[in-house]
Amino acid sequence: MNTQDLLDQIAFIKEIDKVKYIQRKTKLFNSDRCENDAEHSWHLALMAIVLSGHSNEPIDILKVVKMVLIHDIVEIDAGDVFIYDTAKNHCNTDEERIAANRIFGLLPKIQAKELIAIWEEFEAGETNEAKFAKSMDRLEPLLQNTSNNGGTWKEFGVNYDKVYEKKSVIKEGSKSIWNYAEGLIKESVEKGILKK
Amino acid sequence: MNTQDLLDQIAFIKEIDKVKYIQRKTKLFNSDRCENDAEHSWHLALMAIVLSGHSNEPIDILKVVKMVLIHDIVEIDAGDVFIYDTAKNHCNTDEERIAANRIFGLLPKIQAKELIAIWEEFEAGETNEAKFAKSMDRLEPLLQNTSNNGGTWKEFGVNYDKVYEKKSVIKEGSKSIWNYAEGLIKESVEKGILKK
Repeated sequence: MNTQDLLDQIAFIKEIDKVKYIQRKTKLFNSDRCENDAEHSWHLALMAIVLSGHSNEPIDILKVVKMVLIHDIVEIDAGDVFIYDTAKNHCNTDEERIAANRIFGLLPKIQAKELIAIWEEFEAGETNEAKFAKSMDRLEPLLQNTSNNGGTWKEFGVNYDKVYEKKSVIKEGSKSIWNYAEGLIKESVEKGILKK
Repeated sequence: MNTQDLLDQIAFIKEIDKVKYIQRKTKLFNSDRCENDAEHSWHLALMAIVLSGHSNEPIDILKVVKMVLIHDIVEIDAGDVFIYDTAKNHCNTDEERIAANRIFGLLPKIQAKELIAIWEEFEAGETNEAKFAKSMDRLEPLLQNTSNNGGTWKEFGVNYDKVYEKKSVIKEGSKSIWNYAEGLIKESVEKGILKK
């Protein structure tokens, strides 16, 4: 690695600080405070590490960790879209792809290419690693909303069918985690914090 | 992995949410807002990934990433200690070790043992991975303080000698990053944002 590489990497490191300002709709556990994308990504990385043994298929855990650490960086330019917002497209938009090219493009070429490819792989959701990473991304807000007496489900009037549909992606990454998640969803209906 | 393992892992995942409330002294880049430990750990993980090629020695990058993701979890019980606070011990205190045992101890035994060992390895700072992880931990606030016109150096009256001493740990992980960091420190003195 030469000096120019280091300067490019430092420029990227400074740029991604902006991820700490991107507010998600979901609140922290047992809390009224919105989570930001950096906190969310940190949590997903540790979830992936401790839950990797539940993956349906063998996975390269380093790649999964990279995926979840970088998956929301494009929101610096493209913004956060609420998962239950029906008016907006959620993934692989042109806006996000332009953002990925600009932000990862600050890095030396080989690294930029690697991280763009990992981000694209996550978005496509077809490999074992992407499926497991996506299951983490769906599990965290489920745990948060159940800890917050319904959280964003109540706040934005999201019903059981929508939640069940979005969360069932967890199954693609881990059947055992989906089994647990399905139980949480049913329990939420019984408690009246999620409406059928 | 069985169901009890999953329930233990979920308990750990919920517990570490508290890391998002632990405020550091250092502010975000070009900002007045304090960084919290989750944001800090996320940033270090990505710094380690993009800067790993500058390590003095070959490193297991997955282990480094685990180290930086978990290194501040003990602060849930033990609190954050400012690096320039001379009245307090900074690492490997009994309080931190008890915290590590309690929090990582929520996980299934094998995982608890692995993460406690990785945390101890980071604290000891002797392996190539720990040295590189520590260099990331020292580099981030240096970048932040130079972006904030002196930041916590000015706020708490920290002088050149103290900064130089604490930051020189970077050298153990990466000579080329230390070369860059040393330049930033000298530049800070020239600009008058760090006093000799």
